[in-house]
Amino acid sequence: MLYPTPIAKLIDSFSKLPGIGAKTATRLAFYTISMSDEDVNDFAKNLLAAKRELTYCSVCGRLTDDDPCIICTDETRDRTKILVVEDSKDVSAMEKIQEYRGLYHVLQGLISPMNGVGPDDINLKSLITRLMDSEVDEVIIATNATADGEATSMYISRVLKPAGIKVTRLARGLAVGSDIEYADEVTLLRAIENRTEL
Amino acid sequence: MLYPTPIAKLIDSFSKLPGIGAKTATRLAFYTISMSDEDVNDFAKNLLAAKRELTYCSVCGRLTDDDPCIICTDETRDRTKILVVEDSKDVSAMEKIQEYRGLYHVLQGLISPMNGVGPDDINLKSLITRLMDSEVDEVIIATNATADGEATSMYISRVLKPAGIKVTRLARGLAVGSDIEYADEVTLLRAIENRTEL
Repeated sequence: MLYPTPIAKLIDSFSKLPGIGAKTATRLAFYTISMSDEDVNDFAKNLLAAKRELTYCSVCGRLTDDDPCIICTDETRDRTKILVVEDSKDVSAMEKIQEYRGLYHVLQGLISPMNGVGPDDINLKSLITRLMDSEVDEVIIATNATADGEATSMYISRVLKPAGIKVTRLARGLAVGSDIEYADEVTLLRAIENRTEL
Repeated sequence: MLYPTPIAKLIDSFSKLPGIGAKTATRLAFYTISMSDEDVNDFAKNLLAAKRELTYCSVCGRLTDDDPCIICTDETRDRTKILVVEDSKDVSAMEKIQEYRGLYHVLQGLISPMNGVGPDDINLKSLITRLMDSEVDEVIIATNATADGEATSMYISRVLKPAGIKVTRLARGLAVGSDIEYADEVTLLRAIENRTEL
């Protein structure tokens, strides 16, 4: 009886999203009612369309609306390099800097012994399949600098190196704009180990 | 090209909600894709239903799916009291404490001279209409304890008092559980002015 049924149901839907508690869900639901009919219709349509039209690229595992995705089918890209990331958002972050012009491979997860996620639970086998009879000469590992990211990176390099493929990973060091005073010890250690000549 | 079109559109829809920036919208959109078909369908359906089925009660101005709303038509409620609030969420907050059994009037806004909102821009005229030939003997003003809330409260009491209607407002004082040390000066002033005998 607290809220009319239609709004109670909408609050419930908003509450299912991550990081949205009961109060925020209520605020969002009430705001939605004050939005224009067109905006609300578009919102509902976009929800259904995103769920219906998006799929994972059968080559790289990236979230896409075309299969294979536009990166995999782009003939202008450098086919000798594959950059390996955890999820599709990382591809977008990488594309934003407009520096890397090779291909991608999206793992859709990380190896996490603590959570019982092994190499067979992520999109890793297809990477190895891709590397057979391909022109790839370098695999760049760009997993997060976390324990799971490091474990995944280590595993991939151990599997690929014996096959004679060059495996690299993103540099570790001080983030641009950060203070040495507040850097954690491991970051500082990596920064001094990997120091570069000026 | 950063994101496939369906997800870019969904991110755009989420960004239109208050307090949701580009990063949160992206996170929510990606999360939506990982939700079950049923949850996403419900979400879309609830959005449309809330927008389509909800209306404002023609008596009290509250957001409702029945007109007049279930509070206005509830014969067991005390018809001699009207509690005046800013919006429909305040009615729900009040109903939660299960203490007040009278009627409500929702202003759908507050008088705000700073933002050019005058008495004619909120749902106030209908309150005065309601009071004519009714059995109401007390109007309880429960607007927020902010500048706009005070201005609205003052305006309503000036309009209604000459008509011989008793006008009261919610008590001002220390919030339960709060520290005197951290209370602001105006709150302390109100708390000492309105001190009660033990």
